[in-house]
Amino acid sequence: MCELLGMDCNVPTDIVFSFTGLRQRGGNTGPHADGWGLAFYEGRAARVFLDPGAAWHSPLARFLGENPIKTVLAIGHVRRRTRGPISLANTHPFIRELWGRHWVFAHNGTLRNVRRRKLGRFHPIGTTDSEYAFCYLLETLRTTFPTYPRSPRDLWEAVAKVGGVLGRDGSFNFLLGDGRHLFARCATRLSYIVRKAPFGIAHLSDDDVEIDFAKVTTPNDRVAVVATAPLTRNEAWNQGRPGEMWVFQSGALRATLQSGT
Amino acid sequence: MCELLGMDCNVPTDIVFSFTGLRQRGGNTGPHADGWGLAFYEGRAARVFLDPGAAWHSPLARFLGENPIKTVLAIGHVRRRTRGPISLANTHPFIRELWGRHWVFAHNGTLRNVRRRKLGRFHPIGTTDSEYAFCYLLETLRTTFPTYPRSPRDLWEAVAKVGGVLGRDGSFNFLLGDGRHLFARCATRLSYIVRKAPFGIAHLSDDDVEIDFAKVTTPNDRVAVVATAPLTRNEAWNQGRPGEMWVFQSGALRATLQSGT
Repeated sequence: MCELLGMDCNVPTDIVFSFTGLRQRGGNTGPHADGWGLAFYEGRAARVFLDPGAAWHSPLARFLGENPIKTVLAIGHVRRRTRGPISLANTHPFIRELWGRHWVFAHNGTLRNVRRRKLGRFHPIGTTDSEYAFCYLLETLRTTFPTYPRSPRDLWEAVAKVGGVLGRDGSFNFLLGDGRHLFARCATRLSYIVRKAPFGIAHLSDDDVEIDFAKVTTPNDRVAVVATAPLTRNEAWNQGRPGEMWVFQSGALRATLQSGT
Repeated sequence: MCELLGMDCNVPTDIVFSFTGLRQRGGNTGPHADGWGLAFYEGRAARVFLDPGAAWHSPLARFLGENPIKTVLAIGHVRRRTRGPISLANTHPFIRELWGRHWVFAHNGTLRNVRRRKLGRFHPIGTTDSEYAFCYLLETLRTTFPTYPRSPRDLWEAVAKVGGVLGRDGSFNFLLGDGRHLFARCATRLSYIVRKAPFGIAHLSDDDVEIDFAKVTTPNDRVAVVATAPLTRNEAWNQGRPGEMWVFQSGALRATLQSGT
């Protein structure tokens, strides 16, 4: 299995605090040492930092901690492999272009039966069930809409629907970004928190690190963070229910949709 | 305009020496300070490090210099913008998936008339003529072959042909990688060198740095390096002729094809 991390904000924010917690699970407090990745959006484009090694020992992970990149939308992943060997091609998050924007995807779970589904124009490069599912998901969106949908809700519902379909193939917790939204589907385990004024002090669960958000934010800032398991021990995280999909935009939860069971 | 850097080898090699020279041109010895990028293949997958800032001042560029990634195929670019503002989306090299492998592309020149060409399934995310041309190039390959061609020469000739077509829209020096080949088209300025035994000492043109390749190689190593302008001052680089396209594989020049005029 793996651990997911997503962040969606209304002003560019660095993800260092949350990523510090996630890194610990990549070989120290957790066994997810088979690769990690972190994607940062800038408008419709994303850049993805990938490393097939353990996040806990990774010089690149340390570099990103020391040289924060501010973004309004980030998706991270630490991997403990179940299907597919350790390699760059099998390292999440995966990225593709559709409708002139980047889509970024990370998955936690196993989809045993996904390969019987027919793909279209998107093809996996690696051998994971996760990337296969991402290709199927994007192909479904592409054949549903000729261009990026004008109605956001149409898009949200289409993502929830295909999420539910793929969810029947196994366990499908995922994060998906399109530069505007962060989609987060819970199959078995997923939590989120929205931080806004008045900001307080947060303590990481996985490390002896705390941060006073009041000192690094303005009163209008709003930051949603999604993770497989709560990253802090003194905040109230919202637990997802199986088959629930959240849509975040500008640091707020815009919708909770049913996405299968 | 911009500067290109490509490397193709028969054993995993780090690109630090050549990238050190290229970095200098990204804001120090050269004016190409509007973003830079460096892509590294591992099999069919590539990871791309992108930075919209100047390579010369970039902490990420310094990090890659201090933490070398070995690869058999790399493509780098430092940008001096002509079309399209400075942004992540406009930073080369660009990357797309086709036939289950990553394709990586970097361009030097300006294609004034490229936007009248009709695109298909690949769409630019940014606003450069370069990414537009890349999308057109991939669409042409996709509609020419249903899958990755069994005959390498068919692929080489198709790339050369579409390179010649796009070359009519302006100035089209490019590097293109598919994980197996490095394609390098010269429109105005491009050079290459193949280093093999007996290895000697090379001095960078842009910095007071030298390397004794005999100390860091084995007798069977073979490394082809392509750059807009020769990166060393004591080696004999081969200058490209306008409309010529080179195909490198496993560190050797496999073919020189005509690609327009």
